[in-house]
Amino acid sequence: MEFTVVENGGVCSPKGYRAAGVTAGLKPSGQPDLAMLVSDAPAVVAASFTSNLFAAAPVEWDRKIVRQETPVRAVVVNSGVANACTGVQGAQDAKVMASYAAEKLGIAAEEVLVSSTGVIGKMLPMDIIRHGIDLAVESLSTDANQKAARAIMTTDTAEKRIAVKMTIGGKEITIGAMTKGAGMIAPQMTLCTSHPRQATMLAYFTTDAAISRNALQDALGRALDNSFNRIVVDGDTSTNDTMVVMANGLAGNAEIHRESPELDEFAAALEYCAQYLAKAMVLDGEGVSKFVELRVFGAIDDASARQVAEAIARSPLCKTAWYGQDPNWGRILCAAGYSKVPFKPTQVDLDFDDVPIVRSGLAAPGTTDEEMAAVLKNRSFRVKLCIGQGPGRFVLWTCDLTHDYVKINADYHT
Amino acid sequence: MEFTVVENGGVCSPKGYRAAGVTAGLKPSGQPDLAMLVSDAPAVVAASFTSNLFAAAPVEWDRKIVRQETPVRAVVVNSGVANACTGVQGAQDAKVMASYAAEKLGIAAEEVLVSSTGVIGKMLPMDIIRHGIDLAVESLSTDANQKAARAIMTTDTAEKRIAVKMTIGGKEITIGAMTKGAGMIAPQMTLCTSHPRQATMLAYFTTDAAISRNALQDALGRALDNSFNRIVVDGDTSTNDTMVVMANGLAGNAEIHRESPELDEFAAALEYCAQYLAKAMVLDGEGVSKFVELRVFGAIDDASARQVAEAIARSPLCKTAWYGQDPNWGRILCAAGYSKVPFKPTQVDLDFDDVPIVRSGLAAPGTTDEEMAAVLKNRSFRVKLCIGQGPGRFVLWTCDLTHDYVKINADYHT
Repeated sequence: MEFTVVENGGVCSPKGYRAAGVTAGLKPSGQPDLAMLVSDAPAVVAASFTSNLFAAAPVEWDRKIVRQETPVRAVVVNSGVANACTGVQGAQDAKVMASYAAEKLGIAAEEVLVSSTGVIGKMLPMDIIRHGIDLAVESLSTDANQKAARAIMTTDTAEKRIAVKMTIGGKEITIGAMTKGAGMIAPQMTLCTSHPRQATMLAYFTTDAAISRNALQDALGRALDNSFNRIVVDGDTSTNDTMVVMANGLAGNAEIHRESPELDEFAAALEYCAQYLAKAMVLDGEGVSKFVELRVFGAIDDASARQVAEAIARSPLCKTAWYGQDPNWGRILCAAGYSKVPFKPTQVDLDFDDVPIVRSGLAAPGTTDEEMAAVLKNRSFRVKLCIGQGPGRFVLWTCDLTHDYVKINADYHT
Repeated sequence: MEFTVVENGGVCSPKGYRAAGVTAGLKPSGQPDLAMLVSDAPAVVAASFTSNLFAAAPVEWDRKIVRQETPVRAVVVNSGVANACTGVQGAQDAKVMASYAAEKLGIAAEEVLVSSTGVIGKMLPMDIIRHGIDLAVESLSTDANQKAARAIMTTDTAEKRIAVKMTIGGKEITIGAMTKGAGMIAPQMTLCTSHPRQATMLAYFTTDAAISRNALQDALGRALDNSFNRIVVDGDTSTNDTMVVMANGLAGNAEIHRESPELDEFAAALEYCAQYLAKAMVLDGEGVSKFVELRVFGAIDDASARQVAEAIARSPLCKTAWYGQDPNWGRILCAAGYSKVPFKPTQVDLDFDDVPIVRSGLAAPGTTDEEMAAVLKNRSFRVKLCIGQGPGRFVLWTCDLTHDYVKINADYHT
């Protein structure tokens, strides 16, 4: 790798970014609930949003901005209320959230992206939002990596952030990022060009690289496909999923274009950050006790491999077996068997880490129950399924289904 | 309705059927684990089996028999071990199970259907199976409705059986049935003609009606489509789902054909039994505390309505909200929104029983949180979603996701 991880990094690590995380008063707990991120210079933006038909009002606002292909300067994010299923009033509130922040920052409303996460169907309390924006603007700082990352959390138990740096064309370039998301996680984001992609996970990336919009978008697409779009916590795809990358060019490098040899290096670094954060989201998923890397091989094509992997990742029986540390491999084969992907049961092999579990559709000879169970005692393990049909493969990161997941979601009252 | 429910009825209620339920020794608990059902006269048979690629060995045996279109005389069912993912040995064991029972009953192996339910991937302990068959043959009785229904249970907490009677052509005709299934329940059964349908739910229907094979199959198809194929407990489709209807003709009616006006009456009675049992399965689903009738209206076609209903029925967030008695309707709209069925969010209405929850995509004006919450306190309620696109509709029966579901399935060790 051509990049190094920045210690204690985050969205303020690249040049020219300030952030804030404050308590506006949306959360009954009194925890921080409003974050702001501001670039000192106009930033090229690429973004990706949920494919859910009930895309939230802030998502609709952001899509409009991103499609204009004009630079942005700021992002405002609140947690606690999702501003989804809120109709005309919700659209108005998203716009007011942007324009109020713009006014306080002395920029245009069209330079401000907004995001919300929390309960669906409630109107944003705009007085509280305005109060939060006031507080955020006052406390903007280059030292707010942690504060901003905390203010966007909902059921997350830990903040999620990272930054990396590299040298491109003799200049030091930094990428910073923060993300949130623990439940309602099965992002299916589509790229926001004229054709938007879709994530309630929220992810904000900043960089001081000079990079063209098209090149940034390519890098975002690659990062997304290899990170957030291949994680499943509960299989519910949110109304608010958002991934945004801002690039303000303050590193002073020669602009990276689609044809630049440097794009691959930049994209690899962005992908690294996205994948790190995506895995962190699964590890911090609601009630999660097991992190499972699901590798499906031998499908006719990658899409078929993905379909099998998703059936397993969404199966309550597979997920509860993992929680129980039970090598009940029949449930995994069963889920593959109803995934609607054709294959021959007699050609199926399954491994847990490097322990053979199934060979040719039957219990692997020689593997003991103790060997199987030993793998499942780990907090993190690999499930590798080969269906013996072709070269198609897919890797997906998922988790178990636990008592705490039920507790969190049966108790998360509106 | 032209039929009446038989008190304390079951598979032995029609003329000429005997049954047994015994403890062979498959279950560590010592509970009954082997059932037998025998018709005194050769019976026409129609059946439907799982669409899972890993169809269990007994399913493969039964499919072969049913496709021969020859009469059957008996069914042997064991619980505790599924005989799925057991390869050549499993196929041999299913055949031995049938032929051993046939020998003891003095009939041909090809007159015996077999079913298994329980852990996947373990070989059937054939000595125990033979011992169970010996015990069952000795205890066959016309008074075994309850015993047989109990012996097929796995995680079920209650036996499920019913019988109805009606008069057709001056003759009294009876239909009896028993079923099991509490987890791994999302049957997608296909009719077993040359084109098999697919259910680990197991369902056995008996009747003394004289009816042609084709007519019986039509009646089974209609009953299945309006019962087991529209229930979702956890969304996992089993390797062993089976629905069998036997008709021995001992009622002495003129044979019912596809063109007979009586077929509709017979089919309605069969459907009634199937639907009663399907709902009983959901109510007794693993850890279930809420029974939810999900009605989706206004889709372009019925298939689209079904797709929306299934997304909601499989959503862990909807299911945990129901468990929490939480009117978190945003989760329901969210699941509909990612179902991949197109509709306009502003045209969506939602009701819980008769309480308006959402109108035109927004919280229904005037409905209080208390009114919403009151519905969800009931053990059983309706969720009605209209997506405003067309005449398509679908009704599905599902349930909540509870602490007990996680407990049962994390602890159900292999």
